[in-house]
Amino acid sequence: MKPAPAETTHSSRYDRGLAKLKEIDGQAGERVIQSLADIAPDFAKYLIEFPFGDIYSRPQLDLKSREIGVVAALTALGNATPQLKVHIHGALNVGCTQEEVVEIIMQMAVYAGFPAALNGLFAAKEVFKEREAGH
Amino acid sequence: MKPAPAETTHSSRYDRGLAKLKEIDGQAGERVIQSLADIAPDFAKYLIEFPFGDIYSRPQLDLKSREIGVVAALTALGNATPQLKVHIHGALNVGCTQEEVVEIIMQMAVYAGFPAALNGLFAAKEVFKEREAGH
Amino acid sequence: MKPAPAETTHSSRYDRGLAKLKEIDGQAGERVIQSLADIAPDFAKYLIEFPFGDIYSRPQLDLKSREIGVVAALTALGNATPQLKVHIHGALNVGCTQEEVVEIIMQMAVYAGFPAALNGLFAAKEVFKEREAGH
Amino acid sequence: MKPAPAETTHSSRYDRGLAKLKEIDGQAGERVIQSLADIAPDFAKYLIEFPFGDIYSRPQLDLKSREIGVVAALTALGNATPQLKVHIHGALNVGCTQEEVVEIIMQMAVYAGFPAALNGLFAAKEVFKEREAGH
Amino acid sequence: MKPAPAETTHSSRYDRGLAKLKEIDGQAGERVIQSLADIAPDFAKYLIEFPFGDIYSRPQLDLKSREIGVVAALTALGNATPQLKVHIHGALNVGCTQEEVVEIIMQMAVYAGFPAALNGLFAAKEVFKEREAGH
Amino acid sequence: MKPAPAETTHSSRYDRGLAKLKEIDGQAGERVIQSLADIAPDFAKYLIEFPFGDIYSRPQLDLKSREIGVVAALTALGNATPQLKVHIHGALNVGCTQEEVVEIIMQMAVYAGFPAALNGLFAAKEVFKEREAGH
Repeated sequence: MKPAPAETTHSSRYDRGLAKLKEIDGQAGERVIQSLADIAPDFAKYLIEFPFGDIYSRPQLDLKSREIGVVAALTALGNATPQLKVHIHGALNVGCTQEEVVEIIMQMAVYAGFPAALNGLFAAKEVFKEREAGH
Repeated sequence: MKPAPAETTHSSRYDRGLAKLKEIDGQAGERVIQSLADIAPDFAKYLIEFPFGDIYSRPQLDLKSREIGVVAALTALGNATPQLKVHIHGALNVGCTQEEVVEIIMQMAVYAGFPAALNGLFAAKEVFKEREAGH
Repeated sequence: MKPAPAETTHSSRYDRGLAKLKEIDGQAGERVIQSLADIAPDFAKYLIEFPFGDIYSRPQLDLKSREIGVVAALTALGNATPQLKVHIHGALNVGCTQEEVVEIIMQMAVYAGFPAALNGLFAAKEVFKEREAGH
Repeated sequence: MKPAPAETTHSSRYDRGLAKLKEIDGQAGERVIQSLADIAPDFAKYLIEFPFGDIYSRPQLDLKSREIGVVAALTALGNATPQLKVHIHGALNVGCTQEEVVEIIMQMAVYAGFPAALNGLFAAKEVFKEREAGH
Repeated sequence: MKPAPAETTHSSRYDRGLAKLKEIDGQAGERVIQSLADIAPDFAKYLIEFPFGDIYSRPQLDLKSREIGVVAALTALGNATPQLKVHIHGALNVGCTQEEVVEIIMQMAVYAGFPAALNGLFAAKEVFKEREAGH
Repeated sequence: MKPAPAETTHSSRYDRGLAKLKEIDGQAGERVIQSLADIAPDFAKYLIEFPFGDIYSRPQLDLKSREIGVVAALTALGNATPQLKVHIHGALNVGCTQEEVVEIIMQMAVYAGFPAALNGLFAAKEVFKEREAGH
């Protein structure tokens, strides 16, 4: 009996990625997936499979370090505020304190300038308020 | 007795920064300072005082996490290879394994694309070779 | 009789550019021109003359390919959403299907990361809705 | 009597920076400082000390040239609109005319593309209106 | 009989991606894969599977349009010259003329500035020479 | 008598641009034009006409301020070193001192990070040496 090609059904990459996405982003990740449903459902599938099913599922680096890296990178790039906010939530969800998140964003002033760090801090401020308000 | 203004002599920020720079970058940091001596010696002073004397000396985040953040950010920005190499050395100097460095660079494919991650990996490869050769 | 210098009247570059701008962007292009009237009318003139009168009027590449290139580039750069939306309209106006536009934006995940591609897809979603609503 | 370390009280860098910040940005700068009070008060201190107490206080370049440089750079980077607006105010506060501000932003079309210049011009338009309205 | 999980052996995504990579990049793609062997072999696998096995294998956009998009994007980003050169080769391999490649790079002056376009043209010049020399 | 269209002969924009290019960049500008001769001669024409014939020829801002703006912007963007070097030469050619050039590059540490400023300073160091050597 020939096994069906891995792509015709939900792959184990997909299942593993979806679980990892929930672990990191909670409902924020799922909202992104839903927002793609009518325009690019395949992209939602890739987003679960490659970043979360492949990369974030690798055991070589702990999730807290991964989230510190992505908060740093998105603060430095400065052109993806919605995703930065999702990952500030993510960093807090996997064990970073608010103080550590603020600290890594502040550090980006050195590598990407004060405006990038300022805009990162304002994003963090919004996230901290959302969490306080129970979102 | 009125204390002298902090700026007239080497400040404690400078001394603290220089010690921190050596802890993280070893001689690579010092070479950068020397290379500024004939063109912008004041900039070398600022570089020691603000990034290293102020930011890196703060206890709110461990050095290993700081280096993971900067390796992530410089890989993502993709336009500062010499500094990325200095901080890959730095990451290894403060406790990251080569595997962890490779891992955070790979993760940047998700946030800044495969070319940025590839060029980061090639920078890491050079650094690993330099260390093997005893530089 | 000495002819007037080309710059003192509307040049043929201007006329050709205006026609090309209308072909690609319809009224969206004209709105940009109008929005510059009170602050930088000369810039509106340059915008018509160089990009549209010079570059887009060249026969060496078809307009559909040109629009695919600019949608790709603005998605990747990620810091010019209004202009990306204008050119998603432009791509559809010169013969791209919605499916092709979505596809080239998705591809940018590979070169500029998933956040850039996501934000490009959300821009496309807004454009598709605007066109459905008859704007 | 041992003088207290420079960092335990307001340094002369802080006082000099605060005065310089007011000279350039007026109340806009102060609003930024206040907005950091609850999330990263130390970052507000660094922002006053390094950019304004160290860099902008140096006599080697006049403030008007400094503001032309920063308006050019933030227009070109294109990912820090709030800070660009603060520095368009700053440029006007230290002696640039509106025409000169428009001119340096237009020039950025050459180095960072027309979308970056357009978005810079729209930021300038907002700033000019704010000043007319007496903000 | 339970089929083995897709990940334990070479997936069909991998095989499809490798074939697509060869179709587009010829030996240049393979050299990139080999250069990762000693530092990040898993990244080589992801590079084949996601960009080439998933994205480039989708039938919704022809390869020529895909390569026009990536040459445009990498020219505009301006920080990944080695990958830009690989994709200029790729564009020529899948049916673009040298004239069309030059044209899309020139167009990027409008969206990312003249330096980005100039550096893209110099990359194209090198690629054209390599092909003439029979590499 | 109907005047010939401006495009059929060298336009006055071209002549004005070429003179301006020589005023700013001396022979460096001409070398760029020559390097485009075999790959994109039309782009050389646009480069003279739009940036130099249109923008730099406008009287609304002095050349020294224009060069300060472009040195700032290219330092901040960090991905166009050859063009940055051309414009450091240009800044010195139109009246900036070496000290002023160093100063505006240092200032970019605030807006684009220390690596961007460092790499700008190293570019300036090379330019200063070239000029000393009589190039």
